Amino acid sequence: MITGQHLGIGSTKPIFPDDGLLHLYSMRFCPYAHRVHLVLDAKNIPHHTININLREKPDWFVNNVSTTGKVPVLELPTESGTPTLVESLIICDYLDEKYPQRPLYSRDPLRRAQDRILIQRFSQFIDDIYKLLLPNSPTELGTTDLYAGLDIYEKELNLRETAYFGGEAPGMLDYMIWPWCERFPALKYELGFEIVLDPKRFGNLLRWRDLMLDDTPVKKSYLDGETHAKYMRSRRAGETEYDML
Amino acid sequence: MITGQHLGIGSTKPIFPDDGLLHLYSMRFCPYAHRVHLVLDAKNIPHHTININLREKPDWFVNNVSTTGKVPVLELPTESGTPTLVESLIICDYLDEKYPQRPLYSRDPLRRAQDRILIQRFSQFIDDIYKLLLPNSPTELGTTDLYAGLDIYEKELNLRETAYFGGEAPGMLDYMIWPWCERFPALKYELGFEIVLDPKRFGNLLRWRDLMLDDTPVKKSYLDGETHAKYMRSRRAGETEYDML
Repeated sequence: MITGQHLGIGSTKPIFPDDGLLHLYSMRFCPYAHRVHLVLDAKNIPHHTININLREKPDWFVNNVSTTGKVPVLELPTESGTPTLVESLIICDYLDEKYPQRPLYSRDPLRRAQDRILIQRFSQFIDDIYKLLLPNSPTELGTTDLYAGLDIYEKELNLRETAYFGGEAPGMLDYMIWPWCERFPALKYELGFEIVLDPKRFGNLLRWRDLMLDDTPVKKSYLDGETHAKYMRSRRAGETEYDML
Repeated sequence: MITGQHLGIGSTKPIFPDDGLLHLYSMRFCPYAHRVHLVLDAKNIPHHTININLREKPDWFVNNVSTTGKVPVLELPTESGTPTLVESLIICDYLDEKYPQRPLYSRDPLRRAQDRILIQRFSQFIDDIYKLLLPNSPTELGTTDLYAGLDIYEKELNLRETAYFGGEAPGMLDYMIWPWCERFPALKYELGFEIVLDPKRFGNLLRWRDLMLDDTPVKKSYLDGETHAKYMRSRRAGETEYDML
């Protein structure tokens, strides 16, 4: 079951088939929810998706589903009390631990810790880049090296000598940073600024991006830059078009 | 080896005995580093502690040890390339996975995810309370329920029907939130505001606090409220007294 439409105020909580499948509360353009879709699809875990209108949240969602009011939320209908999990990284860790098929984290605790650090540092890079790109940024574009935060990822692929951070196939680090990489081309339409990776400096990352674009779970939820930009524009205008697709 | 004194600018990196023990870069009053000390002590993992002056950081620390410039940092001398780990939660997860003695996380992925969510929500509670208590807070004290963020922890102990969140002994959730609980009494000295838990509302949490104060790893690094407050005052005055003890 996928509610194509985003459920908002006045909606009623969907009645799920009694099939024991996971319930994922999502929003079609949310990069955090995107992470969970990638992990569910990489592991082929069947599930129901319910899209939520985050601007006009349903009462039943705020009061009975999401302790934080945010998506993603994973609801576990077969566990006692039908508990819900929040926070994309915690949900993805749970799925990797609970569903052993195609492990996304290394079995080595050190590699796992190193991947977690790189996931966290990528969030810092994204925060920094968005701050710089905002119209009222205190820093002039051009006075700072926007791409400096990507150097460690380029170096890391080089050190690991593998196509993906996860090895010969995408792993947790690949999937956790992908949602923002997929959205980079949107900046061209939305902010008039294009993220262009210099092939001399970012050869490994460019090859990685092309391989990721060809990955089956990535293709399943992929949207092009223009579509992401259209959503961002509608949100900025205060008229978020959740159901534009 | 413990460097009692906090090493600052002009210091040289300590030469460690060739004993294979972990190196923890810490700061005596840092609640994040405190988390790692609690886990190392709970698991009886021998290690060297090096205290860092965070206001005047040594060059060798910034350039060769900490990728973020922050503590805690765990250096692994027996691993190839002597890698370092940052971020308190990632370090503590690593220690729990690598050193199986006295597991601090549940073996159940769902309980583990629920504990991780409660650790993250506690950080949000701390952020909220500090914002409220700052001298320039936009919200008047008394107009909001400061303690509301603690209700879920009281309820959780009640639901689990155990003395600690971890069961019959402290687990990861207990140790990850303890450093801030230990510092609550400092607010009385530092901000003139006392956090007083109503025994009717927070009976379980009060019993938990007393039990934690009697826990051996907690006692090992314990400092009283007045001492924490003295450090906070010195930091606020711009003359951080790292070596006051």
